[in-house]
This record gives sequence, structure tokens and C-alpha cells, in this order.
Amino acid sequence: MHGAGNDFVMIDTISQRIKLRPRDIRRIADRRRGVGCDQVLLVEPPGQPEADFRYRIFNADGSEAGQCGNGARCFARFVRHRRLTHLTTMVVEAGSSLMTLRLRENHEVEVDMGAPLFTPADIPFRRAETAPEYELTAAGETLRVGVLSMGNPHAVLRVNDVNDGSLERLGEAIRSHEDFPEETNAGFLEVVDRTHVRLRVFERGVGETEACGSGACAAVVYGRRMGWLDDRVTVELTGGKLHIQWQGDDSSVLMTGPTAISFEGTIRL
Amino acid sequence: MHGAGNDFVMIDTISQRIKLRPRDIRRIADRRRGVGCDQVLLVEPPGQPEADFRYRIFNADGSEAGQCGNGARCFARFVRHRRLTHLTTMVVEAGSSLMTLRLRENHEVEVDMGAPLFTPADIPFRRAETAPEYELTAAGETLRVGVLSMGNPHAVLRVNDVNDGSLERLGEAIRSHEDFPEETNAGFLEVVDRTHVRLRVFERGVGETEACGSGACAAVVYGRRMGWLDDRVTVELTGGKLHIQWQGDDSSVLMTGPTAISFEGTIRL
Repeated sequence: MHGAGNDFVMIDTISQRIKLRPRDIRRIADRRRGVGCDQVLLVEPPGQPEADFRYRIFNADGSEAGQCGNGARCFARFVRHRRLTHLTTMVVEAGSSLMTLRLRENHEVEVDMGAPLFTPADIPFRRAETAPEYELTAAGETLRVGVLSMGNPHAVLRVNDVNDGSLERLGEAIRSHEDFPEETNAGFLEVVDRTHVRLRVFERGVGETEACGSGACAAVVYGRRMGWLDDRVTVELTGGKLHIQWQGDDSSVLMTGPTAISFEGTIRL
Repeated sequence: MHGAGNDFVMIDTISQRIKLRPRDIRRIADRRRGVGCDQVLLVEPPGQPEADFRYRIFNADGSEAGQCGNGARCFARFVRHRRLTHLTTMVVEAGSSLMTLRLRENHEVEVDMGAPLFTPADIPFRRAETAPEYELTAAGETLRVGVLSMGNPHAVLRVNDVNDGSLERLGEAIRSHEDFPEETNAGFLEVVDRTHVRLRVFERGVGETEACGSGACAAVVYGRRMGWLDDRVTVELTGGKLHIQWQGDDSSVLMTGPTAISFEGTIRL
């Protein structure tokens, strides 16, 4: 499956007994010798009584990833498509958090991404005070960036043109900046108008991706706090469009976006 | 499937009715939104009475390719795996030519790649005379290259070290050289000893590939004609090893190499 070009191999471990080692994940994710994907997503029975399902996401290198908005959307469509549930609103455990997902029209899925975290220690980010913007020196330039967590850390830089070379020049320097003890995703945000932005994201452990769902949320939250954006914003990413809603403060960020089933198959490991 | 890392989506059009347009091929070959492969190979009933099957190969951009040694090997294993034949030696139409394939041990397949063509008009190559080597000016450098056809045109340059940057510097310039009216594949050959070479190939319409079967044949034919190699040579490509035999003159080039089934599945178009 893919969500705006971010592609996943989805594996149902509820109706079949499977134990995957990191080498199996790497084999599956290999684009020439395996199936090929950005991430492998395992659908599992829930561990908590409030949840309908649990999922785990693994990067192509075999390491486990945190939550992922594109993966969450694909997950919701997958469990319906495979008739693992009849629910159209479901609660899923992803890592340590619970997410609510709603199936919408045209195979779109709305994901409740939870409330953003702004306290530096929660991000984590090496600053004493919480602020809507911070100064950050990267690649010899002094930048003003929004920094927050959507379950994973994001630093967002507003640029005049998303294709002006900023990502290529600054992406790696922001990602690996020493003020982020667990590194950070780096977003490059172009505000077209109050309801429409363009975004490119340089992700931790991956490099630039076509559509980072949590990055889209982080960019809109930052833009809302700075007074640049309304509460419903369309985010145009390289791989497709996401619709983000945020009412501010402690409210959840809602992300709605596309899902697609590329093909279905079997692999022997 | 893949043959030494050159990956194919294999489609049986004998037991199912399928008509694929170039956009379907591009969709299938897309590594994020489709299945993902270097080439799509369609298995068809034979057109000629001497043949057991026919196959056609399409590049990821939807254009039709000529024969392909890695594809031929995968083809032979595929038709046995899918129980389309009980033969272990089979004759297949590929483009305008007939090829003989033999299943060997350990899922290896031997391909009779036919005799090389040296006449410039047959390659096609804009020269008046046939020679074992030609001068070619590319990217401002005067090179000595072997030029021949293995069903598709190949120019082979001997280098001291296959990783010395020659492919990056010269690959595109040789591929698009004006003396090749249908472009050419460009091989970079490092002779380790008389039975062992290393090879990297920059292919028409694709760029560098992990394992070009016809390129391995062309490189060994060139090396044999120049007196550098014995009649059985192991060619180490980026994606794996191929074994090439050639007795010289009008005899066929025999290529033996690996095949692997990555996974099986269905796609809706």
C-alpha cells in the first residue's frame, strides 16, 4: 500500500502466525530482492482493552519506528479491506500511544494524531523555555524554527519557496543538530495562503520522503501558532495532499489523507 | 523474480487474458505506487512452430526492450514454477530471435545467447569496417572500445578498476554517442585473470544496472577476441556472478546464472 507515495508492506499477523526477525524485515523491504517499501507494518491484536488493534512499524534497515501518519491511514484501510473488522472508527495502539482512525470517502482516512507537545524536555530539545519559535544555528546560518513533537521531534523552517534548495543545504544539518539528543525531522514550509501550504520533509534515518504525515501536522501547528494559517489547511507534499485541522492549545491534530492498495501477494522467508 | 539483482515482474498471459498499455507497464514498474521492477516480462504463446514460448520485455518507462539474458533465465524458471511446461530444455522466441534455455542445478539456468554480430550495420554502428576494437571519442576522451551486438548493441571499455569512476564519467556519453543510431549499452570491463573479470554496465533507457546478462556476454566476447580471456569466464557483476562460455567465431555464447523468486501476487489495473 501507499499513502501519498510513502509505501508500506502490510502484514496481517492476526490471522496467520508469523515471527519476523530484523533480517526478514530487511529482505521484505529490499526493492530488488524482496517486495520493496519504505516501511513494513505489522498488524497485531491489541495489548490494551481500549484498543481494537495494535500495529508496529519497521524501517527498511530493520529498526523499529514510532508512529507514522501515512502508515496509520494505510493500516485502517487494510484491516477493513482484509475484513479484520467492520468498524469505520477504530482505536489503535501504535508504540506507547493510542490513535483514533476514521474511514472517510474516496478511501481517505482521518487520523487523530493527538495533541502536539511543546515542552522542550518532551520533544526532546535542549532548551530551557517553551516558545513558538527558536533560534537555531545550522550549516553556518542562524535560522528561526518551530520545534515541537507529534510523537516524534520536528523542526520546521518557513521558506519562500519549498524548492529553493533549503532542504538540500540545511536538511542534514538540522536533522543531526546537537540540540536534538534523538535527532529531529526537518520540515521546509512554504505558506501559499491561509489555507494552503507546500512542505518538504527531511526525515530521521531516511532522508527526504515524499509525504511525512506527522511533519505535515507539525508544520500546520507551527504556522497556526505564528498566526499565518486558519484551522483547516491543505498541505501539498511531493507525493500528494493531506488535509490538517487543529483548533489550537491541547486539542488533537486531525490529519486526513489518501490510501492506495498497490498489489497483494505472498512471500516465502 | 530477479536474476543477480536485475528484477522482473513476470506475467503469464497464457493462462489469463491480459492486454497491457504502456501506462500499465509504467504503473507496474513503479517502485512506490506499483510492484516495482527494472522490467516487465510477458510470457506468451509462441508465434513460430519451433518455439515452445514467446516472451516480450518492457522497460520501466513502457518502451519495449530486446532480449535480456537475466530475463531469459527468470522466464525459464517461471514457466516451470507455474507448471506451464514440463520441459527442462526449451526454445523461446524473444523479439525476432529464438533462444534455447536449459534448467541447471540450484535454480541456475543456461541461456544460449546466440552468436555475436560484428558487422557494423547489424549492431547498428556507424562504421564502414568490422574490427575487434574501434576508436570512439566520448566526453572529450578518445577511447578504444569493443563494439558488437548480442541482439542489442554493446560498447565495452577495458578499465584497470571497475570502480575507478569511468562509468560515472563516460557511461552516458557512450550510451548516447551519435555513432550508435539506436544508442548502445556501455560496459566497463576489468580483467582480473584469464577466467575471471569484473563488469559494470550502463544500460540504454535505464542507467546502471546490477547485472546485464547480454553485457556480460559482450564483454567476454570482446576479451576473447583481444586474447585476454579463456573460453570459460566468470563475470562478477554488482548483483552476482554469471558464467560465460564462448568457443569463438560463429559459435553461440552460453550464459549460466542464478534465478530467484522474490514473491508472488496480484495487481488490479
